[in-house]
Amino acid sequence: MARAFLHLNGNQTFHILSRSSVTRASFPHRTMMVTMSQNQSYWASINADIESHLKQAIPLRPPLQVFEPMHHLVFAAPQNPAPALCIAACELVGGHRDQAMAAASTLRLMQAASFTHEQLPLTDRPRPKSRPTIHHAYGPNIELLLGDGMMPFGFELLARSDDPAQNNSDRILRVTIEIARAVGSQGMVEGQYYELECPQSEGEELCDIGWIEQVCKKKEGELHACGAACGAILGGGSEEEIEKLRRFGLYVGTIQGMLHGAGKLEKGLMKVVEELRNLALKELEEFKGGKVEAISSFVNV
Amino acid sequence: MARAFLHLNGNQTFHILSRSSVTRASFPHRTMMVTMSQNQSYWASINADIESHLKQAIPLRPPLQVFEPMHHLVFAAPQNPAPALCIAACELVGGHRDQAMAAASTLRLMQAASFTHEQLPLTDRPRPKSRPTIHHAYGPNIELLLGDGMMPFGFELLARSDDPAQNNSDRILRVTIEIARAVGSQGMVEGQYYELECPQSEGEELCDIGWIEQVCKKKEGELHACGAACGAILGGGSEEEIEKLRRFGLYVGTIQGMLHGAGKLEKGLMKVVEELRNLALKELEEFKGGKVEAISSFVNV
Repeated sequence: MARAFLHLNGNQTFHILSRSSVTRASFPHRTMMVTMSQNQSYWASINADIESHLKQAIPLRPPLQVFEPMHHLVFAAPQNPAPALCIAACELVGGHRDQAMAAASTLRLMQAASFTHEQLPLTDRPRPKSRPTIHHAYGPNIELLLGDGMMPFGFELLARSDDPAQNNSDRILRVTIEIARAVGSQGMVEGQYYELECPQSEGEELCDIGWIEQVCKKKEGELHACGAACGAILGGGSEEEIEKLRRFGLYVGTIQGMLHGAGKLEKGLMKVVEELRNLALKELEEFKGGKVEAISSFVNV
Repeated sequence: MARAFLHLNGNQTFHILSRSSVTRASFPHRTMMVTMSQNQSYWASINADIESHLKQAIPLRPPLQVFEPMHHLVFAAPQNPAPALCIAACELVGGHRDQAMAAASTLRLMQAASFTHEQLPLTDRPRPKSRPTIHHAYGPNIELLLGDGMMPFGFELLARSDDPAQNNSDRILRVTIEIARAVGSQGMVEGQYYELECPQSEGEELCDIGWIEQVCKKKEGELHACGAACGAILGGGSEEEIEKLRRFGLYVGTIQGMLHGAGKLEKGLMKVVEELRNLALKELEEFKGGKVEAISSFVNV
């Protein structure tokens, strides 16, 4: 399971960072390692469930030239914890994993679509060295179409999770609006636009920490905020719980973006990350039950 | 109104074609012209309502660098009748225009998103001379982001039209699935993929009529089929009416694609178009009421 988790989260750096930054943990070192491992199993089990849901959901039907690459790219694109956070928030407010599975899978498809389009070789796009990249197995034209296919498929998957027995249509529609905003011009797309505005010098970014925080808040923060809020909505959380988890997700996602997308981890940036971690954990203070510890470990990923 | 209609439908060719091909009309020439004009007013009024709905719906808020181009491109992209067909189908089955307005606006956004991405200068994309084009007012990167912003915004607009007073959540979710499929990998995107496969010779297409029909069926046909079916769903049509209008839309859309996107209008192609017109009108035979004539004129646009 640990290996699967390492694979899902892309690289080792992630783990080195998470272990060096648990200054708030009150456990002795050995206990902490056990807890981390249990939490890793929790996320690994969530991620395995999302993958399995998606593998069943993405049709492998003719024309295979269209569907095989979509299948491939959804699983090849680097992951972030937004979809898992959606499930964790649902379980934290007392919901069942299945209730948030479609929304989590939709978030994963949106991430993959956005990543695929971010990799397109456009003439006016700077390519910061720090950005993750994948082997272009398909031509730009196919990759453009793949992103354009994945996004509506995500909304289809979500709408199909409407279940008359659960009487959940209103929640699904609310979550559709949440996800549309987070991935669109008021969220990820706006962040990508801000990112284009960063002054460049031979491919390296020369941007201040405030700017980095702003981009990460829009690009990763709002997607994680949306994931956590959607999980809480689908799990039947109160409005207060939904908003607390939305803010928790915003901090977690901004941390994600700053640690994994911003290039060099300067001292000033680590200070901001530490402040965001504290703010995030503050949002969880009033939640009770066994899942609190599991979701709180998100601040260290 | 007539001028607005001409503008909305892009070019004069459209009208020359429609007048030369009304072989099934049983009216004398003068009466037919009056009827055509009335129907044009009907479509013009539908299109004016969709534009006005969209103008209100697309926020012109900061950052204007993101929202102003989106606003511009939604209205600058060439139109096809799929959104208007959605409203017409809704009214044909006895529904009110407002019930289908959000879905029609979503279809318009999807068209604009798809058109914007089709114009991106990708290295491996052939540009057939027959394809419409617009002035690139923004860089490719912005145009990529605009398409990526418009598509989720379309789904947001649709989900927001959920109205507890109308108890229409289930219809909205059904329409979400319809639109997601029609614009995604089982519809427009699949058609765009087939289009890439056409053998090229110095920018001119060298494809047979069967291939053209298949591409048009996927690219334009399924979007119009979806538009008509969605209108019927939202207007409260029976399952039989929904399926009849879906087939009507499929024929109308395929005709659209063949007349406006396929390059030279050869004799063989015009024969296929005429057959599709007859099949389309056959689907309307059992409908009653004043709107039948209005919707049937779609076979001539």
